[in-house]
Amino acid sequence: MVYSIIGTGGIGGYYGGRLAQNGKDVNFLLHSDYEYVKANGLRVDSVNGDFHLDSPKVYDDATKMPVSDVVLVCLKTTNNHMLPELLKSVADEHTVVILIQNGIGVEEDVQHMMPKLQLVAGLAFICTAKVAPGHINHQCYGHINLGNYSCKDEARLEQIISDFNEAGIKAHCVEYKTARWRKAVWNMPFNGMTVALETQTDTLLKNKATRELIREQMMEIVRATKHMGIEGVDEAFVEDMIATTDVMTPYSPSMKLDHDFHRPMEIKYIYSKPLQIAREAGMPMPKLEMLEAELKFIEEQQK
Amino acid sequence: MVYSIIGTGGIGGYYGGRLAQNGKDVNFLLHSDYEYVKANGLRVDSVNGDFHLDSPKVYDDATKMPVSDVVLVCLKTTNNHMLPELLKSVADEHTVVILIQNGIGVEEDVQHMMPKLQLVAGLAFICTAKVAPGHINHQCYGHINLGNYSCKDEARLEQIISDFNEAGIKAHCVEYKTARWRKAVWNMPFNGMTVALETQTDTLLKNKATRELIREQMMEIVRATKHMGIEGVDEAFVEDMIATTDVMTPYSPSMKLDHDFHRPMEIKYIYSKPLQIAREAGMPMPKLEMLEAELKFIEEQQK
Repeated sequence: MVYSIIGTGGIGGYYGGRLAQNGKDVNFLLHSDYEYVKANGLRVDSVNGDFHLDSPKVYDDATKMPVSDVVLVCLKTTNNHMLPELLKSVADEHTVVILIQNGIGVEEDVQHMMPKLQLVAGLAFICTAKVAPGHINHQCYGHINLGNYSCKDEARLEQIISDFNEAGIKAHCVEYKTARWRKAVWNMPFNGMTVALETQTDTLLKNKATRELIREQMMEIVRATKHMGIEGVDEAFVEDMIATTDVMTPYSPSMKLDHDFHRPMEIKYIYSKPLQIAREAGMPMPKLEMLEAELKFIEEQQK
Repeated sequence: MVYSIIGTGGIGGYYGGRLAQNGKDVNFLLHSDYEYVKANGLRVDSVNGDFHLDSPKVYDDATKMPVSDVVLVCLKTTNNHMLPELLKSVADEHTVVILIQNGIGVEEDVQHMMPKLQLVAGLAFICTAKVAPGHINHQCYGHINLGNYSCKDEARLEQIISDFNEAGIKAHCVEYKTARWRKAVWNMPFNGMTVALETQTDTLLKNKATRELIREQMMEIVRATKHMGIEGVDEAFVEDMIATTDVMTPYSPSMKLDHDFHRPMEIKYIYSKPLQIAREAGMPMPKLEMLEAELKFIEEQQK
């Protein structure tokens, strides 16, 4: 199977790197780091073992990449308007396109732009970042849940999961909506609150008032999903997410890093879309709505 | 009638100053500015006409002040633990004590400390500040609503209103709960949001997302008061508060000034008490609850 990685940052570099290290045929699309990686290869420092790819197959132009069996989209959703151009050569109707992206409603919008694509949601539970050109640092976790949105080729999806697990990436299939909304339970409170209060995960959880606020925001998602008949998002999962975050090293979620480095924040898919879905279903999430408004204000002021 | 002003800042200096200028017998309690005002008098710059009190009756010790017919308490609620000491000489069971303070639940707590006091809530609609020692700057508005909490002496209350109006201070009586909750409609959104987003009233209203958020926070108060049977807090009043703020010059509410100058914020009476009352009545105010949590976090981080 031919794999292509669209966006070789912390996520794409780590997962693509692991697959290539395991002997899979992997093509990497790079942007600013293209010349560096072409000359020096890709370095991955990982809690699961460091490795170096001396001669990865790299491209700086998506239209020159081969049609692939599997495409991992590892871009921020703020770049999704570029996907029709980026995918037009690399993906056809036989390709399985895995969107390893944050938020709710991503597949719906990408499918609307490209109706023939076979889409799968990729929910990565991983702390990883690009720390220098061609240099990925994978700090913790690493498993990925796949939620089938519109992939009819079940056999290929099973092969992908098998390839991932062979390469040391724990992967398995979960129900699509459950997968996306479970990820939202962590993403919605922590991404925005670290930006709004200019802090990190550990400080939010150490303060009594914000610890309770984080829990209440998570419970808004529990109530909304229950109301919509989406399974697997319950109070026990909320407590698990808080306990997991309690033992993490102080962490800046992706939106906090985006804000710190003056990149656009993924407000649309992490907040606006899920808030709209819950509101239209008759179970609004008021505290997360307030957070959305604060983030929109902060983004506007930053311009 | 003998008036005493406990706390000669923007509010106490302006109202007390106007009464003295009009020939009333007014005693002022001062703290850091005592020596200055004793030597130089009190200067009031006002949109309604500047004036100067050459020899106001000033005190630096509340226990030396005479028993008074009327006491205006113009301290921040964060100092209310000092009230039994500050009022023990100046107020007896015949005195009408007007608490010109922010928030909900203030009278209840003061009455609990001093059961015999005759308490009246004073809701000041005024932009005024102490800008230098003995120098008050009154920028806009100025009327005061009085809400009777436990004053049995109706005749004296009418005399007070008459004295105020004679001195050029528009004053009238309104139902106690209505008065306090109407004030909260402006106070709760704007005080906290200007702190949370480090901004001013005009910027909050110019941004589409926060303008809508402010309106929704005000509507939480409308729904809670309606649920509790408190009259006079409706959607029309919300629109009026927003329209009034639209035409104000860019304004930093008292909590924003407290935060900027590293003074304690009045979180307890502006947020915690009314939020608790609404929650216990079965109509919580979730967006304002979130704001309370953010403010507690911000205060904790500032220490």
